[in-house]
Amino acid sequence: MADEELLEDIGERMLIERVKMRFGVERRFERMINAGAGEDDCAIIDFSALIENICGCGGGCESKMLVTTDMLLRSSHFPDGITPFQIGWSAVAVNLSDVAAMGARPLMMTIAMGFPARTRISFFDEVLEGIRVCADNFGTIVIGGDMVRSNELTFAGTCIGFTVMKPLRRSGAAVGDIVCVTGTLGNAALGMYIVSGRLSSEQLKEIDDIAEYAKKALFQPYPRVNEGVLIASSGYATSMIDISDGLAISLAEISRKSNVGFEIWEECMPVSNELREIASTINIDLQELIFHFGGDYELLFTLNSNVLEDRKKLEMLEKYADMRIIGRVVPVHEGIYLRKENEERMEIRERGYQHF
Amino acid sequence: MADEELLEDIGERMLIERVKMRFGVERRFERMINAGAGEDDCAIIDFSALIENICGCGGGCESKMLVTTDMLLRSSHFPDGITPFQIGWSAVAVNLSDVAAMGARPLMMTIAMGFPARTRISFFDEVLEGIRVCADNFGTIVIGGDMVRSNELTFAGTCIGFTVMKPLRRSGAAVGDIVCVTGTLGNAALGMYIVSGRLSSEQLKEIDDIAEYAKKALFQPYPRVNEGVLIASSGYATSMIDISDGLAISLAEISRKSNVGFEIWEECMPVSNELREIASTINIDLQELIFHFGGDYELLFTLNSNVLEDRKKLEMLEKYADMRIIGRVVPVHEGIYLRKENEERMEIRERGYQHF
Repeated sequence: MADEELLEDIGERMLIERVKMRFGVERRFERMINAGAGEDDCAIIDFSALIENICGCGGGCESKMLVTTDMLLRSSHFPDGITPFQIGWSAVAVNLSDVAAMGARPLMMTIAMGFPARTRISFFDEVLEGIRVCADNFGTIVIGGDMVRSNELTFAGTCIGFTVMKPLRRSGAAVGDIVCVTGTLGNAALGMYIVSGRLSSEQLKEIDDIAEYAKKALFQPYPRVNEGVLIASSGYATSMIDISDGLAISLAEISRKSNVGFEIWEECMPVSNELREIASTINIDLQELIFHFGGDYELLFTLNSNVLEDRKKLEMLEKYADMRIIGRVVPVHEGIYLRKENEERMEIRERGYQHF
Repeated sequence: MADEELLEDIGERMLIERVKMRFGVERRFERMINAGAGEDDCAIIDFSALIENICGCGGGCESKMLVTTDMLLRSSHFPDGITPFQIGWSAVAVNLSDVAAMGARPLMMTIAMGFPARTRISFFDEVLEGIRVCADNFGTIVIGGDMVRSNELTFAGTCIGFTVMKPLRRSGAAVGDIVCVTGTLGNAALGMYIVSGRLSSEQLKEIDDIAEYAKKALFQPYPRVNEGVLIASSGYATSMIDISDGLAISLAEISRKSNVGFEIWEECMPVSNELREIASTINIDLQELIFHFGGDYELLFTLNSNVLEDRKKLEMLEKYADMRIIGRVVPVHEGIYLRKENEERMEIRERGYQHF
């Protein structure tokens, strides 16, 4: 029977489509709500239209208000070994990352929390401290929340942010644009290998230099808030998304929304030497870690290729947004592929962290 | 050891105090954030200050933006017998009620959802439909959400609303004001008795007339959105709160915030005849159901007693906000008590639904 089908049978993307169908923004609200449920990293509210709606006065400003919400559960989202401080930090960071992914600045957030009744007060206090420090760090004010008793440690943050100008959508990439990411990739994956106990003490020693960094990438993700704003305000950015579900899924998402394909250059993948080495030593496929593992809270974005003539902007982005160029946008019929150093093309399949 | 104390040991109100201490609004944000975490039903953002902050233009409007978040879990918040539609409805309604309790209109909301992987799609669809219909019913747009796999069915809604003028706080009640509620009390409690199987078929038959109504109060709470706006705009209201945690707790909360006491008149308690009868038949303490059970999504509010001279306003509130007068505000040292018909005073203790 069709209605005996289960959520786990149909996958997250199909579920999101189902939600989108039901909560599509009605035409009469379209001027105010520019993107609704399931459409992008955040909902987009035209701030001028909102002001007009509420007070009758038209601000005429270009700003958009963004709203996003994310739920995190102990069993699915917090790896073993994470501290209570890092749990609180992460509950905030994942929301900030969604706002950052549209080039906006997070301003306020609420956080609803479910705690087991037998949680130690000291643990509770450290979680709150993680929430506070992460929010503070990125200029965000925690304005409210809720607290309930639950079997599983649960957080649902909601963040409200604002853009100065147009938010960066997933839909703006065009053929000929260059493809970029912030930072290096695969660090969270490496962190997971380190804490999973699957590496020998010798292997662990080899990557000692980067171990702390990798673990931090996993346990205490750094949302690219300042970088996102910088990229958006460069004047060259055409699309952006965060890659927390994995680079492959994020590429596929921009591909769908922008109707483009991607050529990613293997030799340009920003991966630490330690990760390369460890991958070959312990015989893990490096591509798997980079494209499909997820957990890196970096930004994937496209820039109009004119930026290549603008040395100053380019340097600014490299220096302050930790930008690396990793490929180019190609026509949609070419698909999404990795161009290896020997010019061979390998399809990048859409596979990564799915919640269902 | 002090830090081995557990959350369940210290109670919800102490926990909220702990949160408030940590997330107190910094002085530099006070003009924009008029009420922060743990202070009232919603956070209050001065919309003019926000506009100024974001676009530089000062709207000069009186409106406040309100934000609230609520987490609901299958085990603690959804009684047996509730339909998936009603689960979705409730997840929205509890948030709308918090906005209504400040006399504001909910405009947008996000909803983060955790579903067990083996949830039937038909169940999922009905939950979504409940969310959509409740939001629609009260003019609220669902602008976004999140969906994760979880062992327990979990919802965290966040609602953004706006007031036309000053929001009604918990802190505005003054000695001499009259105390009012919307609707009748104890219906959710009666509903719980009906579905709990503790009534005989004869008893059930006796309350047949009100059974559906009582079950609906329990399963599909009706947030008093229009009533809240009407009360706020009457010009006489001085404080307001919703009574979902029980009337006793809500009275105590206004008492603390306004530094007043309450005299509640037993003969004026708005209780259905059916509830009175059933309480005496099955030997439950009626006061227990009315004051301490919780689950009634009605509003408790105070009005300046000048309203008593304004027949037109009074009739309007009785007719369209379903208002009943239940007592008066007294000096704080008198405490919170029920004045019985024989003039005897009985203290109303602060006891009700606590999440911890």
